[in-house]
Amino acid sequence: MPRYAVKLSYIGHAFDGWQSQPSGLGAQDELERALAAIGEPVRVVGAGRTDAGVHARAQVAHFDLSKEWSPRRLILALNAHLSDAISVMDCAEVDETFHARRSAVAREYRYFIVNSSTCRPYLKPYVLWLKGSHYDWTPALRAVRMLEGTHDFGAFCRAVDRPEETTRTIHLARLHRRGSLLVLRVVGNAFLTNMIRIAVGNLVELAAGRRDEEWFASLLRGGERTDSAQTAAASGLFFWRASYDRRIDWAGGSEYMV
Amino acid sequence: MPRYAVKLSYIGHAFDGWQSQPSGLGAQDELERALAAIGEPVRVVGAGRTDAGVHARAQVAHFDLSKEWSPRRLILALNAHLSDAISVMDCAEVDETFHARRSAVAREYRYFIVNSSTCRPYLKPYVLWLKGSHYDWTPALRAVRMLEGTHDFGAFCRAVDRPEETTRTIHLARLHRRGSLLVLRVVGNAFLTNMIRIAVGNLVELAAGRRDEEWFASLLRGGERTDSAQTAAASGLFFWRASYDRRIDWAGGSEYMV
Repeated sequence: MPRYAVKLSYIGHAFDGWQSQPSGLGAQDELERALAAIGEPVRVVGAGRTDAGVHARAQVAHFDLSKEWSPRRLILALNAHLSDAISVMDCAEVDETFHARRSAVAREYRYFIVNSSTCRPYLKPYVLWLKGSHYDWTPALRAVRMLEGTHDFGAFCRAVDRPEETTRTIHLARLHRRGSLLVLRVVGNAFLTNMIRIAVGNLVELAAGRRDEEWFASLLRGGERTDSAQTAAASGLFFWRASYDRRIDWAGGSEYMV
Repeated sequence: MPRYAVKLSYIGHAFDGWQSQPSGLGAQDELERALAAIGEPVRVVGAGRTDAGVHARAQVAHFDLSKEWSPRRLILALNAHLSDAISVMDCAEVDETFHARRSAVAREYRYFIVNSSTCRPYLKPYVLWLKGSHYDWTPALRAVRMLEGTHDFGAFCRAVDRPEETTRTIHLARLHRRGSLLVLRVVGNAFLTNMIRIAVGNLVELAAGRRDEEWFASLLRGGERTDSAQTAAASGLFFWRASYDRRIDWAGGSEYMV
């Protein structure tokens, strides 16, 4: 049974998250329906769960097929059966030791904020729109780096999903500002439920001047969900990419650069 | 009666074009309904018509109100009554000699093309998606500059809207490529109906190798609509900005930079 990996882009608000749902509204369900439609009724494994409403620029999934497919033909065949809200962007044949989740060494998320009294209509579904003019992003631009390293992120996890062990390692956390657009980049391997969105909620508290950097630092020394601010909207979050412990021969290569 | 100018962003597929329609589905109708809702039932004048499905990043419109409004308050009041598909992005009080259409000295349109076997779902509504891998953009990147200057653009006008005089002046026409994304920028003052979209159709003919640069040059020496290729999709076109014969004191200034 040959194994294939695909990169998927999808619009978050069209799905009830990545994971397969009883409703059939998970992005994973949609991919599995397309596979069934081409005569391959198999289950798929994704690199990372995304919550309802969270977008994906390049989610990765793997699955085993009953016959050999050229990766380029598989892209076209699957996209012919997928809705406009989700597309296979690339495909590679991989060996049977490849696992979309377990072979990943890093995952990158990006979160987009527009802080302005106005927001372009075509950006609204893809950002957190903060209208206030009272935000000062300087402390947040500094504090975001505190997320880097190994910390107890207990205060950054949805309470009902809290695991025994809440220590995680963040390789990179940066907030970039360009005019009224703010982009948070976070790279790590394992994340807690809602971790990025709670981090954004906490950075917004700093920018709003309701909390200070000392408070932000204290959250990283272990804590409860209730110590953090509210979870920021799903609309601003993108699963940006996954990196693997091996080279993957993507069919598209660098063809698609935007 | 104080006069105001506004910058408007809207999603093309939500409206039946800019201009007021019997159906009430013009973007202009939506703005006039919002003005009526704040107690100012007036007509507005736009900088440039956009066809059904064409987006606007910064359409400009003017109107006269019965009382003085602070531009910042007017932005908030109008946006409270506008749908998610259209927003007032900025506002200025202008003198009574300002006219959104007649005072404009230049209008910029941008047209976005993705040339790739795949297209990200969130970009699809805002581009022309060309799937083929057989396109060679080199001749089009060169030929686009021929559009600059004063020419008889008769071959670049929808037949039913053809005016007596089809000579127009284009200040700048450039095609930029970044990976599989192509962006056409066109700056001029007056345009014929569908002029940019027909130009894109003709550039696609060059890229597809179906026509050569000699043919493209011949279109600029006067001609009929039937000499040109088909009109490219509205989805890729944005009314990008209008420039005026005077300085306008926009309330937002450079606040919103994306």
